[in-house]
Amino acid sequence: MKKRILLLGATGSIGTNTCTVVRKFSSDFEIVGMSANSKIDILRTLCTEFKPKTVNISDKSAANIFKDYDCAESIKIFDGSIADFVKHTDFDILVNALTGYAGFLPTVEAIKKGKTIALANKETLVVGGDIINELLKQHNAKLIPIDSEHSAIFQILNHFGKDALSKVIITASGGPFFRTPKEELKNVTVEMALKHPTWSMGSKITIDSATMMNKGFEVIEAHHLFNLDYDKIETIIHPQSLIHSMVEFVDGEIYAQIGKNDMCLPIQHALTYPEIRNTPFEKLKLYEHSEINFYKMDFDKFVMLKLAYECGKKGGLYPCVLNAANEVCVYSFLEKRIGFTDIFDIVSKVCDRKINIPLNIDNIINMDSEIRKETRWIIDSMTK
Amino acid sequence: MKKRILLLGATGSIGTNTCTVVRKFSSDFEIVGMSANSKIDILRTLCTEFKPKTVNISDKSAANIFKDYDCAESIKIFDGSIADFVKHTDFDILVNALTGYAGFLPTVEAIKKGKTIALANKETLVVGGDIINELLKQHNAKLIPIDSEHSAIFQILNHFGKDALSKVIITASGGPFFRTPKEELKNVTVEMALKHPTWSMGSKITIDSATMMNKGFEVIEAHHLFNLDYDKIETIIHPQSLIHSMVEFVDGEIYAQIGKNDMCLPIQHALTYPEIRNTPFEKLKLYEHSEINFYKMDFDKFVMLKLAYECGKKGGLYPCVLNAANEVCVYSFLEKRIGFTDIFDIVSKVCDRKINIPLNIDNIINMDSEIRKETRWIIDSMTK
Repeated sequence: MKKRILLLGATGSIGTNTCTVVRKFSSDFEIVGMSANSKIDILRTLCTEFKPKTVNISDKSAANIFKDYDCAESIKIFDGSIADFVKHTDFDILVNALTGYAGFLPTVEAIKKGKTIALANKETLVVGGDIINELLKQHNAKLIPIDSEHSAIFQILNHFGKDALSKVIITASGGPFFRTPKEELKNVTVEMALKHPTWSMGSKITIDSATMMNKGFEVIEAHHLFNLDYDKIETIIHPQSLIHSMVEFVDGEIYAQIGKNDMCLPIQHALTYPEIRNTPFEKLKLYEHSEINFYKMDFDKFVMLKLAYECGKKGGLYPCVLNAANEVCVYSFLEKRIGFTDIFDIVSKVCDRKINIPLNIDNIINMDSEIRKETRWIIDSMTK
Repeated sequence: MKKRILLLGATGSIGTNTCTVVRKFSSDFEIVGMSANSKIDILRTLCTEFKPKTVNISDKSAANIFKDYDCAESIKIFDGSIADFVKHTDFDILVNALTGYAGFLPTVEAIKKGKTIALANKETLVVGGDIINELLKQHNAKLIPIDSEHSAIFQILNHFGKDALSKVIITASGGPFFRTPKEELKNVTVEMALKHPTWSMGSKITIDSATMMNKGFEVIEAHHLFNLDYDKIETIIHPQSLIHSMVEFVDGEIYAQIGKNDMCLPIQHALTYPEIRNTPFEKLKLYEHSEINFYKMDFDKFVMLKLAYECGKKGGLYPCVLNAANEVCVYSFLEKRIGFTDIFDIVSKVCDRKINIPLNIDNIINMDSEIRKETRWIIDSMTK
């Protein structure tokens, strides 16, 4: 029996890589549903090949165009939220490759159905990690990380266990500005920030990589995924992204996962878990990469990462605030409304508040919405 | 109850490092016996601290001097071979840190007693790996490698299992001549060859590292320890020796063990196995090592490694011949009787023969002795 995959964010970078993996493992998996935002041309190509039973297109005018495509004849176009799409679709594995906060509620719905979630959407755990963990237990569902860093740590801890763990070490490529002096960051343009040195990803996550917010989210994600105190989560700059991450044990030995910069590998792992299957993708030839470098993380320059640790440690709704402010700022930066370092300044400012509201799903939804409004207001008043 | 250690080769590099580990884990281990060749001053210091019940000193005149030392009053000086010493001493763990072929029979005796052997003597497996594996099964004894490369692979395979193994990758520092052109190797002096870039070891193994014979022995050792075909054992140059070795799995992921260049770590592991204990030794700070390099192994230059693969694949008594010829040549080189590349030439010549004698302990003993005679004769006739 093929495992049925519901693929959210099908037309993005992780989405299309997931399709590549399914294509190679076509006797093991089938894609029964796909969601996309507005890239209906890519969706048409994917639907023609993978023949999902149902699709969800967030952009309503795009959905309207799509329904007249040939490929749409045998496809049910689901009209509603992505969370409802998850709720009303039959599947075995949810691949959540959505960008940003939008990934949170769909994950919640999949957990409530007791399914396996292959998670590329780190915001799910950033905004509601404690709730997600509680729900996973309650519904006996499984969460498997797709992020290369977390996939590496997940696999090492899976085999070594956590009893003798000393710390996890998340590698960071350093992004395009690893060698840029702090003072020059204010001159960074959108074009400069979109040039990621080692990974090809969507624009939102590429900017988050440039500010190191992405690494901050990964720290919070690791905290929840592996139930680790923040002082056991270290980050280190490793520009080549060949070491996907590391775990140090109390005996002083560090175990590193090394592999190609190819998201198909962690996706394959998440889909075939707990099996280790022969990969149809190219393997790394180590000696072709004569150099691996490490550098200490510069928290003074990468303020967003420091802020993520702080918000993570405070817990509760702080990471939700961090994420909402950051999302608004990043899109404003991409629209060239604010500068690169404005992202730091605005997000820091928004996070600097007392929050006494308890963490629950409703409060996450409200807080996310409030913070977006507030951040937009700040940006509007700056750019008048 | 403390575990009783019988330490062979106590005064060498691995021997004294074992003492350092026992000192730090003094409530877990005690050293009940020690063997040394002739370094009785070091042995006296060790005996004064560790108070073994019995010692064996191979050099008889050194033994005679030792028996008059104060520390010797309460120590039984065992008179006989090291193998007999093992046979007649009560212990739980044998640490075999002997150099060369001399380590083989003592390991055999420990296995026959059903004990755990922490093995630093790779020649044990080189000359008689198949026999050792047979005996281990027969006597329900355990062999745990101390060599940093094999310790790394052992630990990774222990946790990941071997089912999905694609290959093991043994790292080699490249030794002092990694960057020396092949043509210049003939000018290498003893002093040059004794300068190992990353590990501090005895002179025999340091020369073996310079010729890459040591890596060849490690390949044969890995074949027997992990029951792997030679085509699943790769070697790669990694000059910093921070990655102790790696394992690649069929899913394309490589797991590397990274740690300090400190033999206390694998010794601690071998003694405390299967537990992972807090290390009292300094841990690696990755960011202090900004660079890790990889280079393809040059089999054309490092002929001894190629020869080791060949002899290993032929099996039977070939690795015994390789080892015996190499031991004689290395000591002749250290005595400045032959040149550095003479080691290659003579060993290759001696290995180039048809062997139809079956592998068993008696034949190993005889072959080792015959080959030594033959090699000495070749060297004598060259240096007349």
